[in-house]
Amino acid sequence: MINRLCIIGVGLIGGSLARALKQANACNEIVGCGRDQAELEKACDLGVIDRFELDVAHAVAGADIVVVAVPVSAMASVFSAMAGHLADNTVLTDVGSSKGSVVIAAQQAFGEVPANLVPGHPIAGTEKNGVDASFAELYQGRRVILTPLSDTRPEAIKTVRNMWQQTGAHVEEMGVQHHDEVLAATSHLPHVLAYTLVDSLAQGEVQAEIFRYAAGGFTDFTRIASSDPAMWHDICLANREALLKVLETFSGDLAKLTEAINNADSEYLMRVFKHAKAAREHFAESTVPNNQSSN
Amino acid sequence: MINRLCIIGVGLIGGSLARALKQANACNEIVGCGRDQAELEKACDLGVIDRFELDVAHAVAGADIVVVAVPVSAMASVFSAMAGHLADNTVLTDVGSSKGSVVIAAQQAFGEVPANLVPGHPIAGTEKNGVDASFAELYQGRRVILTPLSDTRPEAIKTVRNMWQQTGAHVEEMGVQHHDEVLAATSHLPHVLAYTLVDSLAQGEVQAEIFRYAAGGFTDFTRIASSDPAMWHDICLANREALLKVLETFSGDLAKLTEAINNADSEYLMRVFKHAKAAREHFAESTVPNNQSSN
Repeated sequence: MINRLCIIGVGLIGGSLARALKQANACNEIVGCGRDQAELEKACDLGVIDRFELDVAHAVAGADIVVVAVPVSAMASVFSAMAGHLADNTVLTDVGSSKGSVVIAAQQAFGEVPANLVPGHPIAGTEKNGVDASFAELYQGRRVILTPLSDTRPEAIKTVRNMWQQTGAHVEEMGVQHHDEVLAATSHLPHVLAYTLVDSLAQGEVQAEIFRYAAGGFTDFTRIASSDPAMWHDICLANREALLKVLETFSGDLAKLTEAINNADSEYLMRVFKHAKAAREHFAESTVPNNQSSN
Repeated sequence: MINRLCIIGVGLIGGSLARALKQANACNEIVGCGRDQAELEKACDLGVIDRFELDVAHAVAGADIVVVAVPVSAMASVFSAMAGHLADNTVLTDVGSSKGSVVIAAQQAFGEVPANLVPGHPIAGTEKNGVDASFAELYQGRRVILTPLSDTRPEAIKTVRNMWQQTGAHVEEMGVQHHDEVLAATSHLPHVLAYTLVDSLAQGEVQAEIFRYAAGGFTDFTRIASSDPAMWHDICLANREALLKVLETFSGDLAKLTEAINNADSEYLMRVFKHAKAAREHFAESTVPNNQSSN
């Protein structure tokens, strides 16, 4: 049982965590914190949190666990605001979509990466945001990746792992850099491609018709371009290095395929299409099927 | 009422058309034609067609309407096989995903584009193929684009329009080149991107994990990479010119976005992401919502 949980940033991700833990009776008290008082009042009215603080230092006082669920660009300032105010036994975790940037932000704010910090990333989300969009089932059957460092306290890892397990999530661990590479490929690159595609098509002469004649495949493909622009701006910059690496590979592969189309190189086209179909079908079994988007 | 309909290529598209017209009691007799006798026998057993012919010239004899539902790469040989065997009043149409290539194939096979040829394209499909995958509801609420030429007989257009309307489809008309540009953008480019993305990621070191940690957005995004490689090979080459044009624009836009990520150009990123989100949401209303892919 968590006696007091502090969630900084009570939006879709933070709010859904609070709801799930309440539903599981896993918490005595949930304290919300954020900059938007109206949103926090709404979160109280909805029963998502028990009370709120506008000041980070006050919010984290006496908490067993502090979950930082703010955009990755705001991690640094939130960490700075809590530096010096965390009890020795308070476990700290976050939900950021890139982990390298969070570790660096923590290092700068605290002077060193706290041994009680367990960087985390729930692979869950929808295109919506805000506490209104939160729901208790968001994490059920989803994966949560924890990226502890070599000197992270084992008990802290266990605490964060237990917390997420009570939401119905599958918790796994991997290294920070590895996480950032995998997520750049599976999530950040597809979002960049979807945004670019929609932006590119919406500038052409036939934009209205392009959406008019689009069918299911295109609609699915571009759905993720409805995600929050500010959040994706932050993620692109926070995970810039890994993202640029996969972008370079992808652009090179696209240039090769374009050349093959130009040359009517049937063999090349068939090789790529068959390989993609086989890989997609082989690995599709290992994904968790649902209609949510990842961040 | 269509007295005799001849469908050449009784797969997902041809078979679903046959089923829909039978369900609507719109046909007295449906004659199937193809190269695979076992498939045609199955189509008969399933009640999709009434009888079949293996020879195109025999199949088209006495038909009111001939629908060519073969891959775009096979249009030329099918047209050649029926040249000289079509009755003067037989209306000819097709379901190819690119129309310029079909018009050229017809011109070469018949010496000129027949005035009874109404090039057509139902914007419908699934990742599956074959008569087993066909179903009567495939075209309900979907768009069918007809691309008649200036000397196409108005009565032929009316006949094909009526046929598709009885499947529950919305029938529209546009020029051949315009069709090919719109479809290159809404369908062919997204398929090329999905194939390239999956192929690209599946070659990396972390391929198993990439699919393991992929969530809904990625899964949707890559679903169309499960489509039939041979069909998409054909489409890419048949609509090569229009596809290369949108690929060039897309690649240029992706290079600019990559540069912006590299330069941490927040303003540029926010402009693209916001524009894409706004366009997606504005135009999403005009698409026909369903879970089918387009070809």
